[in-house]
Amino acid sequence: MDNKVKIIIAGPRGRMGSEAVKLVNTTEHFELLAVIDHKHEGQMLSDLEGFHHINNVPIYTDLEKCLQSTNSDVLIDLTTPEVGMYHAKTALHYHVRPVVGTTGFTPSDLAELERLCQEKNLGCIIAPNFAIGAVLMMKFSQIAAQYFNDVEIIEMHHDQKLDAPSGTAVKTAEMISAVRESKKQGHPNEKETLAGARGADYTGMHIHSVRLPGLVAHQQVLFGSEGQTLTIRHDSYNRGSFMSGVKVAVEKVMKLNTFVYGLENILE
Amino acid sequence: MDNKVKIIIAGPRGRMGSEAVKLVNTTEHFELLAVIDHKHEGQMLSDLEGFHHINNVPIYTDLEKCLQSTNSDVLIDLTTPEVGMYHAKTALHYHVRPVVGTTGFTPSDLAELERLCQEKNLGCIIAPNFAIGAVLMMKFSQIAAQYFNDVEIIEMHHDQKLDAPSGTAVKTAEMISAVRESKKQGHPNEKETLAGARGADYTGMHIHSVRLPGLVAHQQVLFGSEGQTLTIRHDSYNRGSFMSGVKVAVEKVMKLNTFVYGLENILE
Amino acid sequence: MDNKVKIIIAGPRGRMGSEAVKLVNTTEHFELLAVIDHKHEGQMLSDLEGFHHINNVPIYTDLEKCLQSTNSDVLIDLTTPEVGMYHAKTALHYHVRPVVGTTGFTPSDLAELERLCQEKNLGCIIAPNFAIGAVLMMKFSQIAAQYFNDVEIIEMHHDQKLDAPSGTAVKTAEMISAVRESKKQGHPNEKETLAGARGADYTGMHIHSVRLPGLVAHQQVLFGSEGQTLTIRHDSYNRGSFMSGVKVAVEKVMKLNTFVYGLENILE
Amino acid sequence: MDNKVKIIIAGPRGRMGSEAVKLVNTTEHFELLAVIDHKHEGQMLSDLEGFHHINNVPIYTDLEKCLQSTNSDVLIDLTTPEVGMYHAKTALHYHVRPVVGTTGFTPSDLAELERLCQEKNLGCIIAPNFAIGAVLMMKFSQIAAQYFNDVEIIEMHHDQKLDAPSGTAVKTAEMISAVRESKKQGHPNEKETLAGARGADYTGMHIHSVRLPGLVAHQQVLFGSEGQTLTIRHDSYNRGSFMSGVKVAVEKVMKLNTFVYGLENILE
Repeated sequence: MDNKVKIIIAGPRGRMGSEAVKLVNTTEHFELLAVIDHKHEGQMLSDLEGFHHINNVPIYTDLEKCLQSTNSDVLIDLTTPEVGMYHAKTALHYHVRPVVGTTGFTPSDLAELERLCQEKNLGCIIAPNFAIGAVLMMKFSQIAAQYFNDVEIIEMHHDQKLDAPSGTAVKTAEMISAVRESKKQGHPNEKETLAGARGADYTGMHIHSVRLPGLVAHQQVLFGSEGQTLTIRHDSYNRGSFMSGVKVAVEKVMKLNTFVYGLENILE
Repeated sequence: MDNKVKIIIAGPRGRMGSEAVKLVNTTEHFELLAVIDHKHEGQMLSDLEGFHHINNVPIYTDLEKCLQSTNSDVLIDLTTPEVGMYHAKTALHYHVRPVVGTTGFTPSDLAELERLCQEKNLGCIIAPNFAIGAVLMMKFSQIAAQYFNDVEIIEMHHDQKLDAPSGTAVKTAEMISAVRESKKQGHPNEKETLAGARGADYTGMHIHSVRLPGLVAHQQVLFGSEGQTLTIRHDSYNRGSFMSGVKVAVEKVMKLNTFVYGLENILE
Repeated sequence: MDNKVKIIIAGPRGRMGSEAVKLVNTTEHFELLAVIDHKHEGQMLSDLEGFHHINNVPIYTDLEKCLQSTNSDVLIDLTTPEVGMYHAKTALHYHVRPVVGTTGFTPSDLAELERLCQEKNLGCIIAPNFAIGAVLMMKFSQIAAQYFNDVEIIEMHHDQKLDAPSGTAVKTAEMISAVRESKKQGHPNEKETLAGARGADYTGMHIHSVRLPGLVAHQQVLFGSEGQTLTIRHDSYNRGSFMSGVKVAVEKVMKLNTFVYGLENILE
Repeated sequence: MDNKVKIIIAGPRGRMGSEAVKLVNTTEHFELLAVIDHKHEGQMLSDLEGFHHINNVPIYTDLEKCLQSTNSDVLIDLTTPEVGMYHAKTALHYHVRPVVGTTGFTPSDLAELERLCQEKNLGCIIAPNFAIGAVLMMKFSQIAAQYFNDVEIIEMHHDQKLDAPSGTAVKTAEMISAVRESKKQGHPNEKETLAGARGADYTGMHIHSVRLPGLVAHQQVLFGSEGQTLTIRHDSYNRGSFMSGVKVAVEKVMKLNTFVYGLENILE
């Protein structure tokens, strides 16, 4: 008998999923029992391109059948919102803890999962963002905003990005707004001699979006008060950055017996 | 009857003290009742150079006499370690809450103040560093170190600084070490072709000290894991940076009935 | 006989002027012969507040009289645009090289000074900005823009600044525009979900203005191309930053026999 | 008749070479005529894995035969130092301009190529580093060092790097040393309370090497003088960063009739 966490991964061929397979395969106290794919029933993961070196991992197309055939602890779901909800509920019914990395759950979905966790006395983690550095940046920003009245956000991405500001910048601004009163920053009489120079206004704080080829995904949150500035910055260089968050979530879900939404709530 | 916090400041002519006078004088819900100086007994603060505009604030050389003559809530002490301990104890005896910004208290000093706070059911805050941004930087670094195994510290100061690394850098490294196991970072076989390139080693993490004319006092803490980095940076430009911490401490000490050592313990 | 550069300073009591007095007084190969002020005729500089330690420097209110009475090499003028033009012409007539740190000269003023320099075979430097780091930042940006098609400017100042973007940011953008074709940067279909997020548009490049208490005067110019970014950043902490430029200009003007407008033209 | 630059690439399957194929293929005024490989004689480039979409490009194993069969303008060589020298000489004999991206040429190799260029009245560029941003960073640092006496270098790389400091950091320090007198920086009496804190010493300037997982290849050069700092920073995220340098070199070599060693010498 060993102490490894027995894991099933749903969505192994996606960009996040293939990183998760790599993570579980290279983490000593994790063990990959099976994967859930929408095709390839009955094949082995090693039959698929890119996974030739992953031994003894069967592919199931049906989660229930997989859960009945294996004795697993955790389901890592990196599929789609619709499938994710069904997978999470099914896993809990079989006493398997879900760790789900998709967005799009409705409030009633979340309420249902919370009820199920309580009923089964099991943990479940839904995390729209697994980049632990980004989550810490937002969490720290929220704390700092209680002591600094003035803050600006500069997010920087490659020039193929369509929307400005980024979702992370808006989320950060929301989290800061939740703990401070709206404050019109800058000089009361400031004026833009070139429109847009002062960036976007979000309840009085300013957000700036830089787009340049070469950049990947970066954000800094700057706080200022008399005589000092505090800067919190996250640089994301590739998708591997999500995996430390998945690892933390898997470890944490084993010790929980409640439902958690958002990685920030398990980082103390 | 008003709701202002009634304040006595000890050490008003020092560099920190004069900033504190300015802070109390310009904060609407604070009121400066008196100051403690080692000379100028019987004069008014407005008699002294630099304070001509501060009205109705008498100078005392004896704290007890001052406490008997005024009805104060908080003593801000920015003197020396020896005087600070005597002032803190005396204030507590008179039911006045001390906020003390000096270092050098012994463990038995701290134990005695803790006992006194309990006995009097009063708050007392001793803070070696009032720069709230620096304290947050250290606190956030300690949290981040639980999720990132690899960290390096770069501190940057003007070239008149004698010691390297800075006290703040060492304190940061200590706080990080308290929550992680010692880890030799970098490639196991890395080698310096120029001695010192990899900086100082503190339980396996590396500290780098930059000294340049023009710089004031800056520090960044860099965390790295696969595909991402998280940077926490504090820039201190002048002594005014300490005052936001004094303000927070005064507000907080009014709501406490225990002893607190270190600003980090009142920033949630 | 020594080899010191003999200097007259006009405007010694201004913010720049008092720094220039300090510079000349502490530079071994510079010597301060006299100052020009609009009052205090006949007094000595050491009679004035803040200059008690500067010996043997007479004050003149009339530049001609001063030039006749002294044997000087260079006039440093830090007064106003109107006075600056008169001073520069007068100095050249007396074979003294002007180094002028004011803005507001008209094209015909500049043409007249150029003619005078040629006639007298003397150097003259007019520099609207003496912060050598800022001038190098602009110069380097102009060079880099020839190799990088995409650039964004982020300037950051204290929140008492009224205008956005800063004069330096606009000057930088102008210098970059002079060497590249106008290019609409970012994704062709990018859209702002919060107005202003993408900053100000200057011939297709973007400028962002950050305003926070605590900041002084900072600017970074970011260039991006596939797989890389190049950043040029200047941080100005106080007025002392102008003095290295004054020093370089004084040394350079002694070797010139032509008129130069802009410090960037003497930095090779 | 068109005005495209006709190009041969030697070493198309290497990491740099495959990027170069991509560059030439996607640049409108460039045309790929043929490639030189040490095998696959007689095949087409589109037969090889990763190049299926590149049409009509024959593979040669012998450069002379290739040069005789095609009418090319430029040879881009991204092979090895030994092969590179032979290729460069051969190309010049056939009136084709070499652009070579390898290191390891001896002084007599360089002298021989210089002579050949003169004889043939043709350009040739040998560049050990094609990352245009890194080359500009070094060039700008050398200029800035003439106006700032104090400089420190911080280079940051992933933690799989063996040597510290990096080759680019040492090259930068050499270039700075070439234009300034050796200066022991920092306070004359500074002391390290933790050995190595002040980094490596190179003729008095200091170099710091940061190693963290997540980082790729980054360097900043910090200059300081009274009241200001100037920072020049290069971030390299992937190998694509070299291609802008190759492009510039190909365009430039068409206009040269001399030998050039080092990309910095063609960036004005």
